[in-house]
Amino acid sequence: MMNSRREFLSSGLALSLATNASADQRGYTHAEAEKLLAGGNPAGKLTTDDLCTPALILDLDRFERNIQKMAGHLRDHRKGFRPHAKTHKCPEIARALVKAGAGGICTAKISEAEVFAEHGIRGLLITTAVIGRHKIQRATRLAAAAPDTIFVVDHEENARDLSQAAEAAKLNLNVAVDLYVGNRTGLQPGTAPVDLVQKLAKLPRLKFQGLQAYAGQASHTISFEKRRQVSQEVMAKAVETRHLLEKAGLEVPIVSGGSTGTYNIDSAIDGITELQPGSFIFMDVDYIRIGGQSGDKYTDFDSALTVLATVVSRPEPKKAIVDAGLKAFSTDKPFPPEAKDAAGIVYGFAGDEHGRLDFSQSQRELKVGDRLEFIIPHCDPTVNLYDRLYAVRGEKVEKVWKIAARGMSQ
Amino acid sequence: MMNSRREFLSSGLALSLATNASADQRGYTHAEAEKLLAGGNPAGKLTTDDLCTPALILDLDRFERNIQKMAGHLRDHRKGFRPHAKTHKCPEIARALVKAGAGGICTAKISEAEVFAEHGIRGLLITTAVIGRHKIQRATRLAAAAPDTIFVVDHEENARDLSQAAEAAKLNLNVAVDLYVGNRTGLQPGTAPVDLVQKLAKLPRLKFQGLQAYAGQASHTISFEKRRQVSQEVMAKAVETRHLLEKAGLEVPIVSGGSTGTYNIDSAIDGITELQPGSFIFMDVDYIRIGGQSGDKYTDFDSALTVLATVVSRPEPKKAIVDAGLKAFSTDKPFPPEAKDAAGIVYGFAGDEHGRLDFSQSQRELKVGDRLEFIIPHCDPTVNLYDRLYAVRGEKVEKVWKIAARGMSQ
Repeated sequence: MMNSRREFLSSGLALSLATNASADQRGYTHAEAEKLLAGGNPAGKLTTDDLCTPALILDLDRFERNIQKMAGHLRDHRKGFRPHAKTHKCPEIARALVKAGAGGICTAKISEAEVFAEHGIRGLLITTAVIGRHKIQRATRLAAAAPDTIFVVDHEENARDLSQAAEAAKLNLNVAVDLYVGNRTGLQPGTAPVDLVQKLAKLPRLKFQGLQAYAGQASHTISFEKRRQVSQEVMAKAVETRHLLEKAGLEVPIVSGGSTGTYNIDSAIDGITELQPGSFIFMDVDYIRIGGQSGDKYTDFDSALTVLATVVSRPEPKKAIVDAGLKAFSTDKPFPPEAKDAAGIVYGFAGDEHGRLDFSQSQRELKVGDRLEFIIPHCDPTVNLYDRLYAVRGEKVEKVWKIAARGMSQ
Repeated sequence: MMNSRREFLSSGLALSLATNASADQRGYTHAEAEKLLAGGNPAGKLTTDDLCTPALILDLDRFERNIQKMAGHLRDHRKGFRPHAKTHKCPEIARALVKAGAGGICTAKISEAEVFAEHGIRGLLITTAVIGRHKIQRATRLAAAAPDTIFVVDHEENARDLSQAAEAAKLNLNVAVDLYVGNRTGLQPGTAPVDLVQKLAKLPRLKFQGLQAYAGQASHTISFEKRRQVSQEVMAKAVETRHLLEKAGLEVPIVSGGSTGTYNIDSAIDGITELQPGSFIFMDVDYIRIGGQSGDKYTDFDSALTVLATVVSRPEPKKAIVDAGLKAFSTDKPFPPEAKDAAGIVYGFAGDEHGRLDFSQSQRELKVGDRLEFIIPHCDPTVNLYDRLYAVRGEKVEKVWKIAARGMSQ
């Protein structure tokens, strides 16, 4: 039966078959689902029930609302919008963001930027310094294809390497100086960046474009008021550095920073020119917990991303095992995935391949074959586990999008 | 310069170029390294210094010693060897294990099994029940290609579904009953499995092959003596179930269980026929901590797997930022990666893309561009983040192996 069905799929008759899909055929392989969706699934017969689990699910209605809200807010506040693609790693999503008004995207690493450039996305800002001769040569190749790409630097030797490589490739490289306003990379704000920019100005082929000031610690500070304090304090140092540069006669076209957690704080700061939020498109348990302007939960954006899992064993009363474990969810946070629309069902990790559900506090009795969606603890590393996401409206699967930059951490 | 070098690579002159590789060219793209290695890197000029980071590195000498030790131990104890492929997800490694005497491999999920079957590996045991009509149809397709594949069951309805699908596909399916001796899936040992096996015997097209008894909690019990107690106690229940089945006139060809942590405990238990260890090939910080027969550290197998990272920023005195973070290492354990051969350097996670090194207790001064290897906290989910691993001997990169089943959690 499957053999003939499979032949149908590969013979291009997928679409006619899709309209006959039933619950009996639940669990298409990714390849089969992709073929079905190539025709747009117009009859709406391919539903989330048809997907093999664990599967990454994007609620399109919520996703689109999230994008409109962020884009509208930044437009209203006259800030640039350069959302961070390390969250989604997905060219289709980058296109949706550009369509909504993003002037470009951020990427974390050179290999990630290469993928988006290949997919036609421009306005790239690579938010980590590109270190090592060979990666720098990749940077010049990327700049040849996407000349408006911006590279961050926080180290004179790295700037010299970039300049030499640009000279050899006979092109210019745009650079921004990375400020240590967070807890990762960059130069201490103040005079050190001014010194570096003055040196940059003397190096051939480098075009100074401004400052990057990303404060990871601000983005996840719990409670809106504390978050505002933390972000205003560190971003003030970035703005001060901008003023020092301008006093020294150096133009500062961009100051890029900000996150999902601080979008409505940083957008009110003069001197910050653009924001680089990422998680707002998906949201996750972590961001919900930081708290909003009113209330304990941060609800400015909706949870749009879930993992769909299936109960595969019922070894004990009120305990069910699902097929999604350490390889299906991020594990860097001290809290587990949360069952969606399933009050009283508590998820616990049970190894690489499984999760354990305690449903003793739920009205519901779970049985083998039942399917549940989970809101993920942390969106970025979760997406990085999957090759594709299924974009759905209600139960209907509308699209399958490749996570083309998955694994591109180099 | 790079452009012409790139042309050389794609023109098939990669090998002659490799012999000219120098520290100046460090950081090949994965694609470039793969091309160089297609010729076997005979001159040994491609070294770990040439790889773009973060990169997954396998020390071949240690890896081969680990395999020989496990295979030799099981041969000496007359136990079957069906190592678990969820650890490595790599067909080349499965082949190395089969060459060393493995009778087959375990896989966690149907999608993982499909990859190994496509690569010619046989003797597959899928250690999680295959649930849902469509996955079951995939199971029959797999069984048609690899008839000796064994599927585990712990649920009568699932067994009926398997039987019906096998009937429709006109083939037999091998099944083993999964016992709940650990903390995940399976039926309580004792009479319940006997009932299920008696029902299986009446279902068409199912061939009962025996029992699976995997005790995850035993594998990671800290201290050898406690581990022995825990494993002996639960495995005794599996052996008892075996005897109940035999008393009922049912033959039990295999009893499969055991792990890297219990290999020298379970191999001494009569009635267990084969072991399914996984991590011994790589090892990780987690397994080192369980303790050995002598001493605090478990040193029966050597740490063979590391992540190579590069210092990309030096924002503070005695602090260095490397380019490997939450997307480069497993994060499910409460301890971080450990710097290899670098006493006093302490790694802390610093977000998706970075790690923070505190080297205040080290003799060494770290600078931008320095490279370090890290022993990973937990091997299985770390490997699942990478598309390839670089197999090295000393500094020399010998091979690049595809992690072909990466992401196959369905």
